[in-house]
Amino acid sequence: MKPFHPDATIEMAHGGGGLATTRLIRSVFAKHFANPLLDQGHDAARIDAGSGRIVMSTDAHVVSPIEFPGGDIGSLAVHGTINDVAMGGGWPIALAVAFILEEGFALSALDRIAASMGRAAAEAGVPIATGDTKVVERGHGDGIYITTTAIGVVPDGVTIAPERIAPGMAILLSGTIGDHGIAILSKRQGLEFGTAIESDSAALHRMVRDMLAVAPGIACLRDPTRGGLSATLNELASTAGVRLTIDEAALPVRAEVAGACELLGLDPLHIANEGKLVCICPAADAARLLDVMRAHPAGRDAACIGIVGERAEDGPGLVTMTTLIGGSRVVDWMAGEQLPRIC
Amino acid sequence: MKPFHPDATIEMAHGGGGLATTRLIRSVFAKHFANPLLDQGHDAARIDAGSGRIVMSTDAHVVSPIEFPGGDIGSLAVHGTINDVAMGGGWPIALAVAFILEEGFALSALDRIAASMGRAAAEAGVPIATGDTKVVERGHGDGIYITTTAIGVVPDGVTIAPERIAPGMAILLSGTIGDHGIAILSKRQGLEFGTAIESDSAALHRMVRDMLAVAPGIACLRDPTRGGLSATLNELASTAGVRLTIDEAALPVRAEVAGACELLGLDPLHIANEGKLVCICPAADAARLLDVMRAHPAGRDAACIGIVGERAEDGPGLVTMTTLIGGSRVVDWMAGEQLPRIC
Repeated sequence: MKPFHPDATIEMAHGGGGLATTRLIRSVFAKHFANPLLDQGHDAARIDAGSGRIVMSTDAHVVSPIEFPGGDIGSLAVHGTINDVAMGGGWPIALAVAFILEEGFALSALDRIAASMGRAAAEAGVPIATGDTKVVERGHGDGIYITTTAIGVVPDGVTIAPERIAPGMAILLSGTIGDHGIAILSKRQGLEFGTAIESDSAALHRMVRDMLAVAPGIACLRDPTRGGLSATLNELASTAGVRLTIDEAALPVRAEVAGACELLGLDPLHIANEGKLVCICPAADAARLLDVMRAHPAGRDAACIGIVGERAEDGPGLVTMTTLIGGSRVVDWMAGEQLPRIC
Repeated sequence: MKPFHPDATIEMAHGGGGLATTRLIRSVFAKHFANPLLDQGHDAARIDAGSGRIVMSTDAHVVSPIEFPGGDIGSLAVHGTINDVAMGGGWPIALAVAFILEEGFALSALDRIAASMGRAAAEAGVPIATGDTKVVERGHGDGIYITTTAIGVVPDGVTIAPERIAPGMAILLSGTIGDHGIAILSKRQGLEFGTAIESDSAALHRMVRDMLAVAPGIACLRDPTRGGLSATLNELASTAGVRLTIDEAALPVRAEVAGACELLGLDPLHIANEGKLVCICPAADAARLLDVMRAHPAGRDAACIGIVGERAEDGPGLVTMTTLIGGSRVVDWMAGEQLPRIC
């Protein structure tokens, strides 16, 4: 099919379900996403999952700007949803992608983003199996929104669930926090922090597979995205009804990120990550898991950052942190909205 | 959790991943969608699919207006995606839902739409297993966009695929065409056509299950949504490389819809449906299938509307129609955009 003119933009007809929609799909999406599942050319993709133990996760992506140091909305949408499935203990086997495009959006930008998604999916080994495209009138969107949904298969014997978190377990973190949020913020505001801070956006399923292989008793995995590490830990503490205690000195934070946070009055604990995970596991598994994590590029800076304390009787759970100066403070949820449209 | 004030609206913080997001999820979504899969409270839902033969489909919904005769964006989003899975031969077992909400959107409207989704999902017997919520600034959305993704399990022995369409097969249609598109249009334009025309939005998976039970050799199922029946037939003709011939006299069209189309200069073949299906099957199965379809409310007006003609040698496939006056015309794709944001 003939490629689009370099200056072509999205028109309402591209969302109409007629010939223009078909042309858009064939010229852009089919080209960049090609794989046997998608090439079935049916509205619903047939997938052989092998097993019926499935996990499913979905994420709408509205990140602004759509291109940033270390990634773009396309690669982010692939990584983010793969990671959610991996955090459920699933090996991701297929992605579904839905685009909401704004009339007037440059087809060249769409092509770039679709290419980036195709690359991210191919590198992760997870095909984009099916998709949908809608177009809204100028002024009713923001260029491009992408919702990705992934399904994965859970190996026998693996049950990742926050209810399994128990006192005495170790809290592991796979690397530095705040990189994604600060990368977005610096691009958005045109800030310069000396060194360029890149998003940590990455697919974590291979690291998780290797972690489960050495420690199938992992209680819980979670990626600290929106709301940062503090939101993730508070969610887990609340669901499991326990107290979590972390150690500020053990938290990996890049010097550039720490500096940017100080300058901007932000707390790295509240800043979004897109290629990190929190793992809560029996203490006896911690050392072995850290070895496995550090063998992956995305887990190079993995650390044990704390422990699970006593059960909160009828309480909502609590997260506290031993500070650098030896005090203790409550790590609270972020109350409002620190960085809108971070993912 | 305390319900929201009746005049409350969506704020950016509802998309921040912190406490406001959690409050929104608990007060609105968890209330209306409650089911054991969702109540796992994890980013990815664990689902026992029983079998590894999975179908997956996704749809972004941007319909305007968001409430219309016969449904709303919520029920439409549930029905539309369930139907896509059913058209793949799958029995839908779980839904994932992603919201993109605009700052300032009324929480009362969100509550109404979530309630409608919850009802549609419960009536269809398909739980909303997982979800995501993002918020964009005022002026960067249009109140609410909903992307739904469904997975389903394909029974052994069923293979629905357009490549199986063969000369001599019958083309069945489950009922009247154009109802959804004309219902939306009349609400949007404030038009009155004497009788109120309602959207046909409905979940078709139970009808499909019964159809497959009596005729497992069905070659292809497809729901003629955006682009209408003409787009669906052209897609199938093109994928299968055959000529499809339909009979205008056999096409079920409500008198009110035909009248509205004539008044507005629209072709009912181009108008979207949200509760209809096209079935292409061996001719010997046609009568039995029509009986089964007519036993369901959504298939009451089912009819055989045409046949599959010869294979197009190296051609792109073709759809023709025998007109009421006995002539023959090509049924073309709709070239541009007739009714934007119909689903």
